[in-house]
This record gives sequence, C-alpha cells and structure tokens, in this order.
Amino acid sequence: MRPARALISVSDKTNIVEFAKELSRLGIEIISTGGTAKLLKGAGIPVREISELTGFPEIMEGRVKTLHPKVHGGILARRDKDEHLRAMKELEIEPIDLLVINLYPFKETVAKGADLEEIIENIDIGGPTMVRAAAKNYKFVAIVTDPADYDRVLKELKETGEISLKTRFYLARKAFNLTAHYDALIADYLYSIDEEGKPLACRELRSPLTVTFEKVQDLRYGENPHQRGAFYREVFVKEPCVTRARKLHGEKELSFNNIYDLDGALNLVLEFEPETEGVACAIIKHANPCGVALGKTPQEAYEKALKVDPISAFGGIIAFNAKVTKEAAELITERFYECIIAPEYDEEALEVLKRKKNLRVLTTDGLTGIEKRGADSPFDYRRVVGGLLVQDRDLVTVDPEKLKVVTDREPTEKEWKDLLFAFKVVKWVKSNSVVYAKDGVAVAIGVGQTSRVDSARCAAEKAQMVGIDLNGSVLASEAFFPFRDSVDEAAKVGVTAIIQPGGSIRDKEVIEAANEHGMAMVFTGIRHFRH
Amino acid sequence: MRPARALISVSDKTNIVEFAKELSRLGIEIISTGGTAKLLKGAGIPVREISELTGFPEIMEGRVKTLHPKVHGGILARRDKDEHLRAMKELEIEPIDLLVINLYPFKETVAKGADLEEIIENIDIGGPTMVRAAAKNYKFVAIVTDPADYDRVLKELKETGEISLKTRFYLARKAFNLTAHYDALIADYLYSIDEEGKPLACRELRSPLTVTFEKVQDLRYGENPHQRGAFYREVFVKEPCVTRARKLHGEKELSFNNIYDLDGALNLVLEFEPETEGVACAIIKHANPCGVALGKTPQEAYEKALKVDPISAFGGIIAFNAKVTKEAAELITERFYECIIAPEYDEEALEVLKRKKNLRVLTTDGLTGIEKRGADSPFDYRRVVGGLLVQDRDLVTVDPEKLKVVTDREPTEKEWKDLLFAFKVVKWVKSNSVVYAKDGVAVAIGVGQTSRVDSARCAAEKAQMVGIDLNGSVLASEAFFPFRDSVDEAAKVGVTAIIQPGGSIRDKEVIEAANEHGMAMVFTGIRHFRH
Repeated sequence: MRPARALISVSDKTNIVEFAKELSRLGIEIISTGGTAKLLKGAGIPVREISELTGFPEIMEGRVKTLHPKVHGGILARRDKDEHLRAMKELEIEPIDLLVINLYPFKETVAKGADLEEIIENIDIGGPTMVRAAAKNYKFVAIVTDPADYDRVLKELKETGEISLKTRFYLARKAFNLTAHYDALIADYLYSIDEEGKPLACRELRSPLTVTFEKVQDLRYGENPHQRGAFYREVFVKEPCVTRARKLHGEKELSFNNIYDLDGALNLVLEFEPETEGVACAIIKHANPCGVALGKTPQEAYEKALKVDPISAFGGIIAFNAKVTKEAAELITERFYECIIAPEYDEEALEVLKRKKNLRVLTTDGLTGIEKRGADSPFDYRRVVGGLLVQDRDLVTVDPEKLKVVTDREPTEKEWKDLLFAFKVVKWVKSNSVVYAKDGVAVAIGVGQTSRVDSARCAAEKAQMVGIDLNGSVLASEAFFPFRDSVDEAAKVGVTAIIQPGGSIRDKEVIEAANEHGMAMVFTGIRHFRH
Repeated sequence: MRPARALISVSDKTNIVEFAKELSRLGIEIISTGGTAKLLKGAGIPVREISELTGFPEIMEGRVKTLHPKVHGGILARRDKDEHLRAMKELEIEPIDLLVINLYPFKETVAKGADLEEIIENIDIGGPTMVRAAAKNYKFVAIVTDPADYDRVLKELKETGEISLKTRFYLARKAFNLTAHYDALIADYLYSIDEEGKPLACRELRSPLTVTFEKVQDLRYGENPHQRGAFYREVFVKEPCVTRARKLHGEKELSFNNIYDLDGALNLVLEFEPETEGVACAIIKHANPCGVALGKTPQEAYEKALKVDPISAFGGIIAFNAKVTKEAAELITERFYECIIAPEYDEEALEVLKRKKNLRVLTTDGLTGIEKRGADSPFDYRRVVGGLLVQDRDLVTVDPEKLKVVTDREPTEKEWKDLLFAFKVVKWVKSNSVVYAKDGVAVAIGVGQTSRVDSARCAAEKAQMVGIDLNGSVLASEAFFPFRDSVDEAAKVGVTAIIQPGGSIRDKEVIEAANEHGMAMVFTGIRHFRH
C-alpha cells in the first residue's frame, strides 16, 4: 500500500514534527486537527485542516471534529469494491491511507488526581473511532498509534515506497490492543466510583470482566525454563507492593519465582504494625515462609527467623516491615539470599548490602501503609484452565473483641501475644497450614499437606530435628480441626494454647481434647485458606 | 433527564420491537438505521431514518451510516454549555437523549469458525462510537446496550418521565465495560493469527495486556467465607477444562475451592492417554493430590488411588481420564466426595452417582484431547498485589528420546514405567514436591515443603504410618536435588530408581549417592516447579 494522504491527530506529540516532515517530504498530503495542525504548521509543514476536508467546523470544544463521513468514508472504504469506490466518487470522499493517532491522556488524568469532570472530558471519542476504523480496514490503511513505530514506518516507506501488509497487520492489532486497554481503564475507573464520583468501598464482580495491565518487564523465563514469562502491573496501584517496589541494587534481573516470593514475603510482614507489634522479618522459600519472627530491631527479628530453618533459608527472599539497619545487613550478607524487600534502608545498611553483587535490594519507598491495602487493587485472581476465579483479597484481620475462649482455661498474656502473632503468620502459609509460635517466633511451620494432622506432625518433627523445643509454644491453624488428633499431637510436643477458626461439627470433641490437656483454646470465627 | 429523541440501532434484536413501541407511545421520537429501521417500521412504529437526520446516505454496505456530526453533535453536546447549544442551533443539530445500541456479533462470528474476511467485517465501528460517545456524556444522555435493561429504563420513564442520573451512570459504566470487552476480544483474536489469518503457535506477551472474561456464576464465597467470589470463563476455549465442563448432577453449587481443585484434578489425569497408558484416577484435596493411580479399569485405578491416603481423600475431588463404570461408581458412593469429573459416564454409573444428593458430577463431554491443550488458552497467570505474572502453561512432557540415565545401572522395564508415571504426577504437586511410585500407584506424595529433603521425608513417614511399603518403589522429584540427602533418605526406605531434572552443581555427588545405593537415576532436563 502506497499512501497518498495521512491524517495526523495526536495528544502525545513526541517526535510528531519530525515524522510529519518526512511524510510530507515523501509527497504524502497531511491532514490534521486542532493543536496538532497548529504545531505542524508552525514547523513549516504544509497541512490541510480537517474542517476543510469535511466542510464542517470543529465544534463543542473539540468534542466533534473527525466524526464525519468524509473522514470515515475515506478510512473505511474498501479499495477493492466497486460500490465503495463509487460512493467515494459520488460523495467526493478522498481516501485516507495512513493515520497517525494517539488518545487523550485518560490514565494520566486519573493518576494526577483530577476531578470527575476533567476525567470525563479526557475520554477520547473521535480518536478511538479513527483508530478502530483504520485498524478494521488494515488491508488498505495503516494506523500508527505508537511514536515508537514512526521509524519502522518511515524506513519501509523510504525503502519500498509502501507500507507492507505485514506492518499494517502489526499496527492494526496494536491499535485494537490500545483501544481495549483504554476502555478497560475507563470501565475500571467508572466501576470504582458512584454516580457522584465518590469511591466505592466494594467493587462489583461484573460481567464481562476485563482486566488490563502494562508490562513491567520480560522475564528470563516463567516458573520453569521452558515457559516464557513476563511481569505486568496494574495502572492505578498506590499501595506498597512488589509491583511498584523499586530496585536499589542487584545486577541480576528478578525472576518469575523471585517476584512471586517477594509478594508473599511483603504480604506477610505488612500484617504487622512496626510501632505497636514490633519489627517483623519473614524468610520465604517456594512461596511459603520458612522463618518468621518479631523483634525489637531488624537484627533481632532476622536472627530469630533464621534460626528456625537455616537450611531452607538458603537462597530465599527476606522481607522486613521496618527500616533495615547496618547490623541486620551485616548478618544477612553472611549468607546467600536472592532478594530483600523493606520500606527503607539505613544508608550504611545499603552500603553493606551492595557488597553482594547478585542480592537484589528492593524498597517500597517508605510505604508500610497497612490501612491502604486493597483500595486500588481489590481482587485476587486464581487461574484455572479456560477461566479465572476472582475473589476479594483476604485482608481481614482478627477483631480482638470477637475472639472467643472456648476452653476452661484462658490464655495467659504471653500466650495471647503468641496466639495472635501465629494466626497472622498462618494466613500466609499454603493450606493445610499450622504455625507453632513461641516468644514472637514461628518456631515450626506446617505447610500444604492434604491432611491437617500431617501438617502439624511434619512441622513438629522438623522442629525436633533442628533442635527447637516446642514446649511452651502455641499453635495456630488457618482452618478448623476436623478431629481431635491434631490437638493430641500438639499436646505431645508441649503446646499450651491453640488458636483456630472453630466451626467443625466435632468442635465439642476438639475442645474437650484441649481441656484434657489443660490447654487454652481460642476461636476466631475467621478462616484463612490459601491454596 | 427527559428524553425527546432516541436512536435505536441493534444487531441483537431481542425485545427491541416491544421496547421501541413503548418509547414511541411515551412520545419519544425514534431514529433508526438499516435493518433495525425496517423491523420497527414493519411493526408499525413511526421511525425516522438516520439518513434523513444527517442528510447523508448510508454508504459502503453500512460501514458508514452514523459517523456524522449531526448524530455525534446530538449525542455529545453538553446541554449546560452555551457554546455547545449555539453550535447545535447554528448547524441544525437535533439533540439525541437516549441511545439503544448493541454491536455486531464479533464473538459469535469467530466462534462459528468464519473466515478472516467475515470476522473483520463483523468488527463494529459505528456502534462502539455511539456507545462510547453517549456513555461519556451520561450527564445528559442515556445509553442502553443490554436488552436486560429495557424494563428498568421503561419503568423509570413511566413512573417519573425521566431517566435518573443513577441509572444513566449505571448504563454508562456498563457501556464502557462492553466496549472494553469487545475490543479485548478483537485484540486477542488478532494476536492469535498472522497477517494471512493463520493461527500462531506462540502468542506474544504483549504490552499492554488486556484479558477479558464472561461470568459463569457468582459463588457462595471465595476461598474463605469473608471473601466474595465469582467464576469467569474465557470466551473462545475449546479444550477440556473445568470452565467448559457440564454439571450432570448435584444440587449444591460448586464452590471456589471445588473449582480450583477440579482444575488441578483434571489437569493431572489428562496427562495420561487412556488407550496407551491406562485409566488414571486422581483424588485432590487442598489443591494437591492425595492419591493417584493407573489401572486397567476405573475401579482398579480408584481403589489403588484411595488406598494411599483414605483420610485425606475424605471430602475430596475425584477425576478420571476415561469413562466411569458402574463398578467404580458404586465404590465411590461408599464414601464422601465433593465432586467427580470425567470425560463420560456409563448410564448405570450415572444412576449410581445420582443417589448422592450433594455429589457434583461433571463431564467434559467426551473430551480428553491432550493434543489440544493450550491452543485457545495459552497463558497461566499468577496474581501478585498490584500486578500479574504471566507465563506459558506448563504443557511440556518428557521426551523419551532425551532421557539420560546417569547412573551405572539402567532402570529395569518396570522401573521405567513407574518413573515416567511418577514424573507426570509430580508436575501437578505443589513445590517442593516428590512422588514415590510403585506399580502405577503414587504410593507417597511429598507436598510443598520449603526444603526438598523434608518433602521426601514427610511423604515416606506418612506411607509408613499408613502401612505402605516403599520397598521397590521409584522416586520422582520435580526439581533437582541440591544435596545427596534426599537420595540417602530414599535409599533408606527402599527406593530403587529416581527421576529428576538434573542440573545441580552437586549432580556428581547426587549421582555418586545413587550409585552407592545401587539405584538407577534418570535426568529429564525438564523442571516442573509449581507453586
């Protein structure tokens, strides 16, 4: 296809003058609108105004300028159909072969916190229409929506005088990819507010559901080397998360599994408020924590977390909920870890960490902001073949007022502290999960067995092998106990108190078991399955 | 807002005559296009043709009919701005207050297997433009895109003479939700083919990435009762999967966790070709298999799978890769399961299963089609806060030609069979995972520990507790052994052969351990992490 006429109408004016100049030099007539026309004319490029082509003025502050049959007939006409050619001739419609369009900055307007009226005004109508029309008619028309493609198009035009079918198809699918993204963002925004523009506390699980992401980076590979992988971000997220974390150090790129584990690690430590609950450190391996502890300092929290399973910790991911100190950094660099994520780092700490060439050091830029979690990114997704399971994120925490002691004995103050700590940790362990805790340390973590008692048993055995004494520890289970067996197992190793949702038909039997063993047991009424 | 003029242009004509008739009776002037106009006129409704309004003919086989400033000025004009009102007056633009639009059946055209030209022709340009323009101007205009909303709009009009802001906003966000979905489907289709229309073997990990789903059903709740949940499907999926499975029996709705486990169960059994490898049965609990076996009949496979961990199997999900027989059904109904999924059921088997009121019985309608996996749904997603990890699905299976025996001893024929079986099973167990197999049965399954040796140890201990003899079994590991410890553990319980990817810096040490124990060891070169 050899273009004779181009329509240029861009909001993002990057490199547009240079591109238009070259097109003009190649003998292509340039038609343009509003601000773009002014800019090009100012640069000495011969430009025909769109209103000249249509015989209709630009009206309503630019809301209506290109929505005209002389424009869209010129874009949409099939050049291989007599009827279309006849209509062009009779109605004096000139063919438009090349379109250079990008859209009003809807995303940027929302991101800068504009009001509803300004946001609505930045929904482009004419632009997407031309983009879509040209993309539909890619057999005869080329549609350029990305300044990054100007060079490719120019190169082809200079070398061959044409824009090839291959390039036109490439541009067309990119065009629909753009309009899909654009409208998905608009829909997402409109479903986040009510008709007065007020943010909604709870978003609709609508149908259809269209979710859109920008690529952060291609990854070396996916979960395994034979799978390609890429990392994508939502557009409007402000809460502390791996997606918006910034890498301060580390030559190696993050891997698929690194990112997944960083997410798990950060989710876990953000459960704890540093001022009131203490500094939390979590060490993650294969999507599960192998060490979690609270401490007065990062150093203390890290040392306690590490001690539980130093073998698993090798090559793991570390997260903190507070500023990392030099003392902690020095201990951390004694061993091999893949990544560390924290709100902040002491200057000296960062220097120490930077000595490890391949340790990736990430910051949430000071954000801990527990109260903001879920505001911009309320849904969790679970992939199934051919579909998606969508749910609210599990952001509920235990309401201390609603905790119910069901045994004869109340937990002691020390037990209460460990029970609440353990129940926060167990939420981020894959089901079936149990956590034994003592003095603010998750001393044994039972992960992902198909039966609950196996999780309890495996974890306890592991602790014994490492030489950790579970005597005087407490136990948290993320779901109810179906039988008394886990309670009996716990008693054997010296557990004195248990926290669990409750709700089994055998609760009575389970409570009796606890009473028999002189344990305290607390029901939360909240389950934290995580698969 | 009290509408005086409505524009109706619908592809899906459901209830449109009745709706238009009522609007007309309420004194609203009806403008319409092409086929819709003909239909309404035929029903005796007074209709003004769009070309009468625009003074411009419908041209190019309907490609250009509504793309006219007299239409879009009438939709987009802000009724609260003098400049807009003046433009309307000067240019004789009549306000259009109510739009009833739905779009060309792009999805249906692709789904019926039409050729590229017909598919492209079914990309609507004029429709989405009016939908978007009206939705942008929802402060003054109402846009109805769903026949299900006709009643709501009519009711309001009859009761109040108006369409409220609340309803206009509801309709506007629904409108953008529709255009986002529509363009996401178009982009998805265009990225699945090349410029000649030939399907691509490998799809681009593009940016932005917009994925779209239709809701199958709202769920009672998500993974936990305090999380809302819903189940969504991709539009174009044809392979056997839980998303397109049909429920033959079971009053209770599927839960979030049921669907996730059904997906895992079906993925696992579809690894096995019934004709050549045998009937496979998998029992899934908490997203991991607690029993997997091959048999000559479904009954045999089920009995063998169950024996490994009957306690975990309670309340689980069962899947088969072949037609379920009456004999298998009778055994299954002796115990409590949540769901069963299989390609087919004998008539008598179905009768037996139906006796269990709450057992959900699902069919893939005969599909086993291993070779089709991934064609329409090539990507796996892993959610992280504020983003998405995207990867190719793990559909690679071991190439028998590339297997490498690294020990002095070759596996025996019996060992080979169990090794290949175990390596297919371990792929669907959450990492770190190991599977012990003997005679086509996964006799011990090590799940999700943060260290590999713990997975191997926990599984072996469990087997001993249940009274399963691991003597003469083989072991599969989804990733390499970082140390020789797991091999030594395996030898202790009588494992005679091991299959694993290989690739550790300590491979030499690991192979030496195997040789010391007189084991055979096979490297696959393929890792199957699954977190």
